[in-house]
Amino acid sequence: MSENLKGYKKDAKKFLIEHNLKLWDIIKVETKTTTYEGILLPRYEYSKAGFIEIKLENNYNVGIKVDDITKIEKIGEKEAKYKIPEKDFPKTKGFPEITLLGTGGTVASRLDYTTGAVIPAFSPGELFSAVPELADICNLETEIVFKIFSENMQATHWQQLAHQIETLANSGKDGIIIPHGTDTMGYTSAALSFMLKDLSIPVVVVGSQRSSDRPSSDAAMNLINAATVATSDIAEVTLVMLGSSSHDYGLIHRGTLVRKLHTSYRHTFRTIDDIPMGMVQNRTIRMFTDNYHKKDKKKRETTALTDFEKKIGFIYFYPGLTSEMIHYYIDKGYKGLLLAGTGLGHVATRIYDAIERAIEEDILVLMTSQTLFGFVGMNVYSTGRELLDMGVLPGKNMMPEVGYVKLGWVLGQTDNLEDAKKLLMTNIAGEFLDREIPIAFNYDIDRLLKDNLI
Amino acid sequence: MSENLKGYKKDAKKFLIEHNLKLWDIIKVETKTTTYEGILLPRYEYSKAGFIEIKLENNYNVGIKVDDITKIEKIGEKEAKYKIPEKDFPKTKGFPEITLLGTGGTVASRLDYTTGAVIPAFSPGELFSAVPELADICNLETEIVFKIFSENMQATHWQQLAHQIETLANSGKDGIIIPHGTDTMGYTSAALSFMLKDLSIPVVVVGSQRSSDRPSSDAAMNLINAATVATSDIAEVTLVMLGSSSHDYGLIHRGTLVRKLHTSYRHTFRTIDDIPMGMVQNRTIRMFTDNYHKKDKKKRETTALTDFEKKIGFIYFYPGLTSEMIHYYIDKGYKGLLLAGTGLGHVATRIYDAIERAIEEDILVLMTSQTLFGFVGMNVYSTGRELLDMGVLPGKNMMPEVGYVKLGWVLGQTDNLEDAKKLLMTNIAGEFLDREIPIAFNYDIDRLLKDNLI
Repeated sequence: MSENLKGYKKDAKKFLIEHNLKLWDIIKVETKTTTYEGILLPRYEYSKAGFIEIKLENNYNVGIKVDDITKIEKIGEKEAKYKIPEKDFPKTKGFPEITLLGTGGTVASRLDYTTGAVIPAFSPGELFSAVPELADICNLETEIVFKIFSENMQATHWQQLAHQIETLANSGKDGIIIPHGTDTMGYTSAALSFMLKDLSIPVVVVGSQRSSDRPSSDAAMNLINAATVATSDIAEVTLVMLGSSSHDYGLIHRGTLVRKLHTSYRHTFRTIDDIPMGMVQNRTIRMFTDNYHKKDKKKRETTALTDFEKKIGFIYFYPGLTSEMIHYYIDKGYKGLLLAGTGLGHVATRIYDAIERAIEEDILVLMTSQTLFGFVGMNVYSTGRELLDMGVLPGKNMMPEVGYVKLGWVLGQTDNLEDAKKLLMTNIAGEFLDREIPIAFNYDIDRLLKDNLI
Repeated sequence: MSENLKGYKKDAKKFLIEHNLKLWDIIKVETKTTTYEGILLPRYEYSKAGFIEIKLENNYNVGIKVDDITKIEKIGEKEAKYKIPEKDFPKTKGFPEITLLGTGGTVASRLDYTTGAVIPAFSPGELFSAVPELADICNLETEIVFKIFSENMQATHWQQLAHQIETLANSGKDGIIIPHGTDTMGYTSAALSFMLKDLSIPVVVVGSQRSSDRPSSDAAMNLINAATVATSDIAEVTLVMLGSSSHDYGLIHRGTLVRKLHTSYRHTFRTIDDIPMGMVQNRTIRMFTDNYHKKDKKKRETTALTDFEKKIGFIYFYPGLTSEMIHYYIDKGYKGLLLAGTGLGHVATRIYDAIERAIEEDILVLMTSQTLFGFVGMNVYSTGRELLDMGVLPGKNMMPEVGYVKLGWVLGQTDNLEDAKKLLMTNIAGEFLDREIPIAFNYDIDRLLKDNLI
């Protein structure tokens, strides 16, 4: 029985056992206010205790507090199908060898299920069964590196991925696909960009905004696009997701310039301050730029430089912010402070004292802007110049998230403050742009294409 | 002499006196590394001591540390012009009576100067001299409410403005213009939207991204557009700034839906999740919606509800965030926590304990998304549902900044937790949208107009 109550703990488990219920049972649940009918689902590892989860007929899942249940009964049974249908992934001689590294993201965990299950399962055979086009693109292997929600991703996870990629790249693999929850995908693509020195093969981070049980799912198309990029000559960390609401093509974003900009749309990811590197459609790549590292004939040696300083404070400026938060970070031994300032890179003068103290205590302070788009310009107003004079470093066009990741990575690489400053101001992985690109603000790729602007 | 060294303090002042220099002198300054030539400028009140500021020939200002100066000499003199040229503002009978409330923003402080001065000066006569079109639109009066950089704006400033607007609206004025630094303009427009109950006249927040001494300045056009909207029937708080790079028209943004999205471009402001309320071009307004409060024939009574709880923590989630920051806010007696979560409204499970503690201690916790665009959707994943179960309130489509302002305002209005929750979930000033509007994501107004989509 306990096998059949995957993810349930304590009270909820006891409750289900008492009522003789098992996963995939169709049940009717009554609370004081509502009656639900649906399929009893397994739960994720991190799910909160005290709830049961069912899939309603409209395909949405709902969690119901056990304490609120006034009546529960089994009204049917769904055929228990614990395995995604699996066919042998056909290997073709001479095809690129691609490895898919599982992290627990939506693509990986929901590729094909008929019972409403959220079991993360994605052997090559399962993937082939769900997305047979993959076999026309590459020979696929899969490895589960870890299995978490992307909001739980931390530096240790980036490190695990980077080490695994280093091994695979140097052992002859042709490309890597990393299915990843979309929430923190931009953080991960930035972290891997900094950590993978002399990367010799494509590393493609991909996700989906609609799980594959929904008709509008972008999972299969994103995976096909990612596989296409993973077999290309783009030896960089990229993020590949749908590029427009029309579900037509994917965009190839540089790992250090990309961000999730919409909670739910499928074309939620955008390259910020630049146009994307290229697009991918019907398994064909069209690059918008030639400015990227191409695979060398003689592969260079990939090195994972993964040390990361975790004590980085991310300070998002707002009108109620006081010095005390910054003093708190200093008192707690933080090594770096990322400021997401206003406009060209400003914060209120009332927190200058704390910033000065941080710098006096050899904490690295980096300024970015909460506008997201544009370069900080700390020479324009006297307040910006004063921060520069104190020793605040200008983050140029880096988004706050990218600045945070870079700051942690830089302080992991060296204990010497001057070396760290120099490294922070060095373009490591395309995070610094040479100039403003006006068409990159509010771009609409459909339109830029139509107008021959890219 | 001291009159002529406005803004200079201590060492810098002493240094200038010793070298017999005064404001508007053309000087040559040498440091170990560089030589500068330019006009010696007055300094702002909050400028850091120990620097002199000069305007270079390319019109940029530069601050030079007095300690770094190896040589300084006067090489010429600019005619000292302490007053912006001033003509009487012609009043026309029957024209709308508009009051301009000065805050220290760029439009106000830089409207016209020939010497490189940054003196905030904007009497009606000066404004007329700089932007004569204003006299064709309205009869203008001006009042300085305060004079600060917008990054120093706090709740007390919003309160001062709201009280002044209440008085003016109820004493028969037809509209208000608030020139404001662009950095925190969106915070102010949101705060005034919540604070001004039953607003009877237009309140238009406006700024400029290029000071008026530069050929590309947007100051005059934005001011004309703002005056046009201030004399309209839109009895709401709006923000009016240029709408496209083509310098053609202004957009009218609802005060609770607008954000600065680019550090330097003139069309930096965007309505998020919706199309703007309308546009203004050649002193003509074109509304894209009819859904706004129109001036009543019999004016309603405007009430300023300005109480604001300052102890609101703004927690921008990032992969290195730990529980301790949240515990710190709780320990410090904070009353509300604004979460800028990832994606549909998530944070790492490792901080759940702190969020639970906050809620147990009757702290109001509001979830928004750092994607900026889109609604939070906390029913989609189990992690979102768990946060809802704990008592985290979903901020719908509100941006983090707007959520912060609303949370502070709501907790200023009532001490009763249930009333506060109810008020937080009530649409007060157009901050909640009914639905997603697909064309509002990545919109390009030029294109929407061309395609007849608005």
